Amino acid sequence: MKKVGLIMGSDSDLPVVEKAVEQLKKLEIPYEAHIYSAHRTPEETRAFALKAEENGFGVLIAFAGKAAHLAGSIAAASILPVIGVPVKSSTLDGLDALLSTVQMPSGIPVATVAIDGAANAAILAAQILATEDGELRERLRNQRMEASKNVLKKDSELNI
Amino acid sequence: MKKVGLIMGSDSDLPVVEKAVEQLKKLEIPYEAHIYSAHRTPEETRAFALKAEENGFGVLIAFAGKAAHLAGSIAAASILPVIGVPVKSSTLDGLDALLSTVQMPSGIPVATVAIDGAANAAILAAQILATEDGELRERLRNQRMEASKNVLKKDSELNI
Amino acid sequence: MKKVGLIMGSDSDLPVVEKAVEQLKKLEIPYEAHIYSAHRTPEETRAFALKAEENGFGVLIAFAGKAAHLAGSIAAASILPVIGVPVKSSTLDGLDALLSTVQMPSGIPVATVAIDGAANAAILAAQILATEDGELRERLRNQRMEASKNVLKKDSELNI
Amino acid sequence: MKKVGLIMGSDSDLPVVEKAVEQLKKLEIPYEAHIYSAHRTPEETRAFALKAEENGFGVLIAFAGKAAHLAGSIAAASILPVIGVPVKSSTLDGLDALLSTVQMPSGIPVATVAIDGAANAAILAAQILATEDGELRERLRNQRMEASKNVLKKDSELNI
Amino acid sequence: MKKVGLIMGSDSDLPVVEKAVEQLKKLEIPYEAHIYSAHRTPEETRAFALKAEENGFGVLIAFAGKAAHLAGSIAAASILPVIGVPVKSSTLDGLDALLSTVQMPSGIPVATVAIDGAANAAILAAQILATEDGELRERLRNQRMEASKNVLKKDSELNI
Amino acid sequence: MKKVGLIMGSDSDLPVVEKAVEQLKKLEIPYEAHIYSAHRTPEETRAFALKAEENGFGVLIAFAGKAAHLAGSIAAASILPVIGVPVKSSTLDGLDALLSTVQMPSGIPVATVAIDGAANAAILAAQILATEDGELRERLRNQRMEASKNVLKKDSELNI
Amino acid sequence: MKKVGLIMGSDSDLPVVEKAVEQLKKLEIPYEAHIYSAHRTPEETRAFALKAEENGFGVLIAFAGKAAHLAGSIAAASILPVIGVPVKSSTLDGLDALLSTVQMPSGIPVATVAIDGAANAAILAAQILATEDGELRERLRNQRMEASKNVLKKDSELNI
Amino acid sequence: MKKVGLIMGSDSDLPVVEKAVEQLKKLEIPYEAHIYSAHRTPEETRAFALKAEENGFGVLIAFAGKAAHLAGSIAAASILPVIGVPVKSSTLDGLDALLSTVQMPSGIPVATVAIDGAANAAILAAQILATEDGELRERLRNQRMEASKNVLKKDSELNI
Repeated sequence: MKKVGLIMGSDSDLPVVEKAVEQLKKLEIPYEAHIYSAHRTPEETRAFALKAEENGFGVLIAFAGKAAHLAGSIAAASILPVIGVPVKSSTLDGLDALLSTVQMPSGIPVATVAIDGAANAAILAAQILATEDGELRERLRNQRMEASKNVLKKDSELNI
Repeated sequence: MKKVGLIMGSDSDLPVVEKAVEQLKKLEIPYEAHIYSAHRTPEETRAFALKAEENGFGVLIAFAGKAAHLAGSIAAASILPVIGVPVKSSTLDGLDALLSTVQMPSGIPVATVAIDGAANAAILAAQILATEDGELRERLRNQRMEASKNVLKKDSELNI
Repeated sequence: MKKVGLIMGSDSDLPVVEKAVEQLKKLEIPYEAHIYSAHRTPEETRAFALKAEENGFGVLIAFAGKAAHLAGSIAAASILPVIGVPVKSSTLDGLDALLSTVQMPSGIPVATVAIDGAANAAILAAQILATEDGELRERLRNQRMEASKNVLKKDSELNI
Repeated sequence: MKKVGLIMGSDSDLPVVEKAVEQLKKLEIPYEAHIYSAHRTPEETRAFALKAEENGFGVLIAFAGKAAHLAGSIAAASILPVIGVPVKSSTLDGLDALLSTVQMPSGIPVATVAIDGAANAAILAAQILATEDGELRERLRNQRMEASKNVLKKDSELNI
Repeated sequence: MKKVGLIMGSDSDLPVVEKAVEQLKKLEIPYEAHIYSAHRTPEETRAFALKAEENGFGVLIAFAGKAAHLAGSIAAASILPVIGVPVKSSTLDGLDALLSTVQMPSGIPVATVAIDGAANAAILAAQILATEDGELRERLRNQRMEASKNVLKKDSELNI
Repeated sequence: MKKVGLIMGSDSDLPVVEKAVEQLKKLEIPYEAHIYSAHRTPEETRAFALKAEENGFGVLIAFAGKAAHLAGSIAAASILPVIGVPVKSSTLDGLDALLSTVQMPSGIPVATVAIDGAANAAILAAQILATEDGELRERLRNQRMEASKNVLKKDSELNI
Repeated sequence: MKKVGLIMGSDSDLPVVEKAVEQLKKLEIPYEAHIYSAHRTPEETRAFALKAEENGFGVLIAFAGKAAHLAGSIAAASILPVIGVPVKSSTLDGLDALLSTVQMPSGIPVATVAIDGAANAAILAAQILATEDGELRERLRNQRMEASKNVLKKDSELNI
Repeated sequence: MKKVGLIMGSDSDLPVVEKAVEQLKKLEIPYEAHIYSAHRTPEETRAFALKAEENGFGVLIAFAGKAAHLAGSIAAASILPVIGVPVKSSTLDGLDALLSTVQMPSGIPVATVAIDGAANAAILAAQILATEDGELRERLRNQRMEASKNVLKKDSELNI
């Protein structure tokens, strides 16, 4: 199976990234994580993205806060699907990262998920990889069913 | 090749949807368009989404404005990747549709693009389908190169 | 008297829901609470809403955060009045839930109250049920009078 | 059947109010419309609201823009369900009216619909009145079914 | 000298109101504080405002959060200058209270100060009363000069 | 009677200022209008404000858009009450001007009215000047009564 | 004198860029304009920025809308001062471009001016270049004086 | 080398200012810090700005929160490049300070950095001073290289 690339702009994003890792492990999806900054290491970021396809990546997930350019920079250097996770920082409650990630100009899409929505980014990556992988589709379906059962179990135990 | 499903919540979204269609045609991707409303035809919307995988769809794109639930409703009924296009309406400049589309709860991702970003939704769909399709990857690369050349041509002709 | 249905998207909404329960108890209104998610258990949510009228519910209150689709999903499946309580979550201070709940398209209204406004949702439900119930109207009037007296008592004791 | 009261803060709100009137006529619901301002005619507004119940009103709908206090003022003077329609004015795209209408303090709810959402306000009023009126419930169900059919018809004719 | 009326919508506003009181005491301005709610005690609020002029008030300051109608309600019942202090509450960071207070319709102004800007409300009240009171003008000038000296003293001691 | 000073940051603000002038004329209040910019003519702005009191002004109204510093600059140079009118410009719908005008730091209040709320600024100025002017209070009361009658007349003629 | 580089992300930004050009011409500052996109021509953009210093540029101005990454991309590739002009596009009134431009992470500043603030970007560039250029400082001072005189002339002719 | 002037509106801004000081020390840039308020000490603020050029300053950095006029006031009194740092305060998460600082009218630019972006303000000041200082350019390049190495080192040690 192709790998998912997890690229974070700073190690301060790690607590968010870990929620994606946890999800990928549950779904048995190989991944590789990196710290590359769109602004502090633009060449390494670009080099990574340019080679991602031939290096066995199938989807890339970028995590960044504030003027979050990381996902866009990576998307500009690869035709792989790129998922952007806007990360909340100390001001503006994540709105800056959300708009910087999602409002991409025509030609270079970034598949944006919710602010700090790392788990969903991992699931979306899985859905993309599952297009050609029946077993992964099965795992995704099972996960959904469990989530559904879990809600119904909580409902049945609800006592207020 | 698998089809892209285009689902709009109302025929008033057509001008936006057409930009996606134009892009899909350029990339020679088969598609099928529908009008289904999350609120006015919830059962048909759900039925379509539940059957999308077996009906040959590989990616679904949902277009909706205001409290834009369409992408989320479809995502809840399919493990196919679902792309959401928030559509600007008469108030709040599309912010309501953006937040309603992107801020999905954990478990059910929607790959959100820019407000009215229909062309990018189509390209993102193509990138997803291209995971296993070398020719489509080639077309995507060519399109990028042309876009790039086009910018450089405009730059060379710039005269201010 | 008809029951009020309280539906929350997740058990994390319980602290908010409890403020509605407290209010309903004060007003002696029967209620039934459930955990159903618009995205994780869409069929159970819809089944509940479709049967709500015949199961003795008179008003439904939905509690959800982020891209809060729960109230809209329920409203799409019932002609009972549906009240939406946008729940504040970890980002955007509840604005996402507010816009996702209130900006409903034409045809399917959701009666939206303030962010985390659970007590008011219960009172609004009571006002709706009171349309045909003189005693409940009396209790609502008494509650108002007490609230009013309480303000005036605090005013008379104010010492700054 | 009880009447629906339509109260607008200014005659400049008439184009929005008319969409509610149109909807009420379709649903054969009696109504009475007034221009009362929370700020320019506070006493008449309050007198109207205090007498609304005994004057045969079952639901009140208030339309106002900017610092939209009208719905709140009416809600403070009646235990009838009060629906608020935030009206977009020349600045801030209706956000001021939305927040002024929906963010009511505990004790006095306003059932808020979308900005300029007059048709939905009328439907919500109908849903409230229908609690005890089987024929109106039937008309509401029929209207929904027609809206649904209308979407499906448009879907079947869609050709892009 | 005429009194300043301080009206708060709830005793939860007291910590903010106290900053105004402190300021009024410094400026030796008589005041009278009340708890009146625009929604829970509309008649007492209105009665107070209607009589404020003849009861010796020269300026009224209203403190309220969320859908902050208190200042507007008072302004609708008196031609005295009414100052509005938007109070921050648990959601939306005071933006709701600010817009509900400042965006008043034509005819009924509210002199709005910053969110939680109680000290400035008191100073503004003093400036209004000082129009005809040379000694108060002197105190205001002295206070300014002291504030200025205070800044300059801190500047001279700055050591970074 | 003391004069009202009208200071606008740019002649592009004239259409807004004229609504204040019209209102002042109705209320028979003397005024003097100036174009002074906080940024382009800071000294003249300050000189005007410093002398305003001795030059017979009783209230100052400042009109400015974008990073609207004019009202604050004037308030910093005078202990007269200063009213700020945030003027909507080509971007952000007036929100920038509103926040720049109203969020003043402790010590220097600006009495802020609605975005483009020039008429209310004039009325607020009149209310301030009326503190010691019984006839002006009478004119303000009459104007209110007429506004009230006007609403009631429109209500009585309403026919929808 | 060193040149000012004007880089726009798309030729649709030309009307905004022209206001900067006009200003630079007035101040007799040499400039060179280019169309380079952070996303469509990332390598040319980077190559241009990397060579800007040795190619005789002293300041770079980047113009971009939506998820405006252009200024940040250029700033990441040069230690020249980079000025960012957020350009308003069809949705969100320029807020997306503003936040994407200004909220840069630590280490890579972008000197951001107002939305569509092209003239100010040119003046800021001039101020930077003037650090070591007495004649340019003189021209800047003269321009200010003229702007000031222009305001005062308009003030003296004001007649309302 | 010319000095950098650091002007803060209040000593409560010191924690933010210190991040700029730390950066300036690293880059061996002389600086001088002051507390001057646009509103409480407008004359000293203006006097400082008017003399800044002749007193050996090359760049000025202003720090202020809320209706942050400080940078604009200084920019109005000097043709030196003025950098504005919007400081987050207790409400609105810094949005008020950002808009008050960046949305300057034509003619008087303020080079705005991120909310609380003090380190970047210092680096931007260094970039401006470096225009004519090869050694400072070298230090800036080295700092960048170290930041880049630091990211790559963290990447190489990443283990998740």
